[in-house]
Amino acid sequence: MSFLNGKDVLDGAQFTRDEIDAIMALADDYRGQLGERRGLDLLKGAVLAALFFEPSTRTRLSFETAMHRLGGSVVGFASAESTSVAKGETLSDTIRTVDQYVDVIAMRHPRIGSAREAAEVANAPVLNGGDGAGQHPTQALLDLYTIRQERGTVEGQTIALVGDLKNGRTVHAGVEIYKHYDCKLICVAPEALRMPVEVVERLRARGFSVEETDSLEDALRRADALYMTRIQKERFADPAEYEQLKDAYVLDRAMIERLRPDVTVLHPLPRINEIATDVDALPNAAYFRQAQNGVFVRMALLAMVLGAA
Amino acid sequence: MSFLNGKDVLDGAQFTRDEIDAIMALADDYRGQLGERRGLDLLKGAVLAALFFEPSTRTRLSFETAMHRLGGSVVGFASAESTSVAKGETLSDTIRTVDQYVDVIAMRHPRIGSAREAAEVANAPVLNGGDGAGQHPTQALLDLYTIRQERGTVEGQTIALVGDLKNGRTVHAGVEIYKHYDCKLICVAPEALRMPVEVVERLRARGFSVEETDSLEDALRRADALYMTRIQKERFADPAEYEQLKDAYVLDRAMIERLRPDVTVLHPLPRINEIATDVDALPNAAYFRQAQNGVFVRMALLAMVLGAA
Amino acid sequence: MSFLNGKDVLDGAQFTRDEIDAIMALADDYRGQLGERRGLDLLKGAVLAALFFEPSTRTRLSFETAMHRLGGSVVGFASAESTSVAKGETLSDTIRTVDQYVDVIAMRHPRIGSAREAAEVANAPVLNGGDGAGQHPTQALLDLYTIRQERGTVEGQTIALVGDLKNGRTVHAGVEIYKHYDCKLICVAPEALRMPVEVVERLRARGFSVEETDSLEDALRRADALYMTRIQKERFADPAEYEQLKDAYVLDRAMIERLRPDVTVLHPLPRINEIATDVDALPNAAYFRQAQNGVFVRMALLAMVLGAA
Repeated sequence: MSFLNGKDVLDGAQFTRDEIDAIMALADDYRGQLGERRGLDLLKGAVLAALFFEPSTRTRLSFETAMHRLGGSVVGFASAESTSVAKGETLSDTIRTVDQYVDVIAMRHPRIGSAREAAEVANAPVLNGGDGAGQHPTQALLDLYTIRQERGTVEGQTIALVGDLKNGRTVHAGVEIYKHYDCKLICVAPEALRMPVEVVERLRARGFSVEETDSLEDALRRADALYMTRIQKERFADPAEYEQLKDAYVLDRAMIERLRPDVTVLHPLPRINEIATDVDALPNAAYFRQAQNGVFVRMALLAMVLGAA
Repeated sequence: MSFLNGKDVLDGAQFTRDEIDAIMALADDYRGQLGERRGLDLLKGAVLAALFFEPSTRTRLSFETAMHRLGGSVVGFASAESTSVAKGETLSDTIRTVDQYVDVIAMRHPRIGSAREAAEVANAPVLNGGDGAGQHPTQALLDLYTIRQERGTVEGQTIALVGDLKNGRTVHAGVEIYKHYDCKLICVAPEALRMPVEVVERLRARGFSVEETDSLEDALRRADALYMTRIQKERFADPAEYEQLKDAYVLDRAMIERLRPDVTVLHPLPRINEIATDVDALPNAAYFRQAQNGVFVRMALLAMVLGAA
Repeated sequence: MSFLNGKDVLDGAQFTRDEIDAIMALADDYRGQLGERRGLDLLKGAVLAALFFEPSTRTRLSFETAMHRLGGSVVGFASAESTSVAKGETLSDTIRTVDQYVDVIAMRHPRIGSAREAAEVANAPVLNGGDGAGQHPTQALLDLYTIRQERGTVEGQTIALVGDLKNGRTVHAGVEIYKHYDCKLICVAPEALRMPVEVVERLRARGFSVEETDSLEDALRRADALYMTRIQKERFADPAEYEQLKDAYVLDRAMIERLRPDVTVLHPLPRINEIATDVDALPNAAYFRQAQNGVFVRMALLAMVLGAA
């Protein structure tokens, strides 16, 4: 049975290299099996609680689809308004209650650390689908999976992370995954949204190569994979600051063709305007394939934590 | 395999007479099979995305029930607020993402043409569950199915369409279906809500009989089937205009008994006050049976577009 | 087949003692079966409509989980906003429509008597998941089940009901269940929230022992089971009255250890502050186990009304 049997998935930093490779391999396996048939029966009878206290299309539907493709069922909610949170219930009580019903919990909540709080009171495995500006480890794993798929390997690749590196949970979770591979990072952000200095220092202390720049063009020239992110309005206390920074980086087709025709473009989505739609038709545009990879990776995680793989 | 295998269902006008008859026959078949058992296994493992950007009880629950009765699963949302649309994502991006997860998409969206936009970017078949004041083809098909069930045939029948014929998507989709049959239409609407003149002219150019009147009583005397519709508040920019027109037509039991005791009464529902509740107990009232027929017709469409029939 | 086959569950008062015992026995049976595997196949193909016109985490997710554990499917909604109620549809029309789709309906609605109204127009069995300040019979059954589980029996037990006994639907449904057993009730409420006098008198007329007090400490000393309830803000027209009463009773660990170390503490949840969190770690705290029991009891009810048990 898997190393994840009965465990939580809270943080990109929790995995060893071997563990990440095992998740990738199982995701590959499910991708192959779904090529031949629509669904598997591995989790028949099992129930997932998808508890989304914040809006989500992608992560929620991806987790739910993954559970259905494995033969399981789903209960849950898509916003906090229709729940007992509206009656003043604490997160801890909501989780302890739902824990009595289901076999596994996937959740998104606006507070940093919320998934860990949930894991502390739940017997069922908790999968963190985003805790505010904190972590988003399943996204980081599917990002890695996508780089592997698109470029054949992560080893030797130069990955540029672009946008709000201060608040972006997908990049925070991502660096904890990438650090296990022999790749290089370029952090591209305006001064106000730089990657937290302690993150950069921790990576460098491991001997990992991390550059910082505020120039998208500079990074694009040297990148194999460009990981674009949205400047997230909901993370700004001051709307004026958001307005000033929201158009900091806009990637378009001409830039790619001029600077790095071979680059792979990723994005956790949703995008607003940071990737022009004329990029979509290029083979470089991996972001919708990336969304599909999320189903395979989440199938792997669900099967592993439930002891079915 | 069906002519609809891998295709979209966007518009009442897309079908030939033979195709409509094939859908009716398959819906009949499923009705029969569900008389003996609760569900079938035809779509086991398949996943439907029910993407409802506008409120719906009937259409959403009917599609979802149809998918479950065929053995499939459902993901989705019941309003745009809990999705990434709230973060500024375009319809096209939402659809392209969900398309990576599921086998088939059923959607409702307030913008005319939205389902066609979705179909252009999705690989999965798209079933239009209402695009603003545009089309609602699955409703039109179940309306036709209901007239067949209730009156034995559509041929030779006089069908009166009553209410907001200007904005009503169910009647716009309906005439594109009815035109294939040897039936007569009476369009009953106040001047401000008349059937668009180009629709009437196009039908007449085909040699199809279409009368127009603003008198419900006049139409009722001569109709075999009366298709009542709600004056839809959400389609009026000016509330005063809505207030003036909302009570234009109210059908009650006394009118039926006095003018046309044999008439079949349909309504896409929800109704506000346009059919008095004293009609409900009459055998003429077909509108709740009509709701049930929606499940059989949508089962047929789902099975066909997914190549299972 | 069960006495409940095809029947509704609307009110704690509808059951005989034998019927309650049969429900308890079937819930025990399912608890045992789920110890060995995750789900059963008894309701394969069947569809539950979970119609929640008011916020709910527990009751909705518990019903849905119960249906999934029995192999069935679920459609529905978690708030009235995303439904045709927003278009002005009556409850009766919504129910008659959904009744055409599904095999069984579980509902919560803010109006007293709403579940009974629904049952009058639906062919499918209706399970009342709370009708305003009215009834909540499935909660009452799971409360009874929990007392049996925790204390071995209900016979001879002294049960203290604490909090808003005027508006609390779980206690109103509860007394209709407890009255069949040889147990004693202590009603603990502030003057303004006392158990309705007609309820107390009806119980006493049956020879049932009912005490009333406004002292939690007094009741705790003599109780075997303490049934705490939330003072429900949403039931008060006057916010000032709510503010004055909301902290009337707060149970903490020290009180239990000092007054009645053996007491079993129940709560329908969600709680606000009426049970201090230092109680949670005590073996006395049965309220989360109580939530789990809800799944077994609702499985029993679903299987019974659908003729599968």
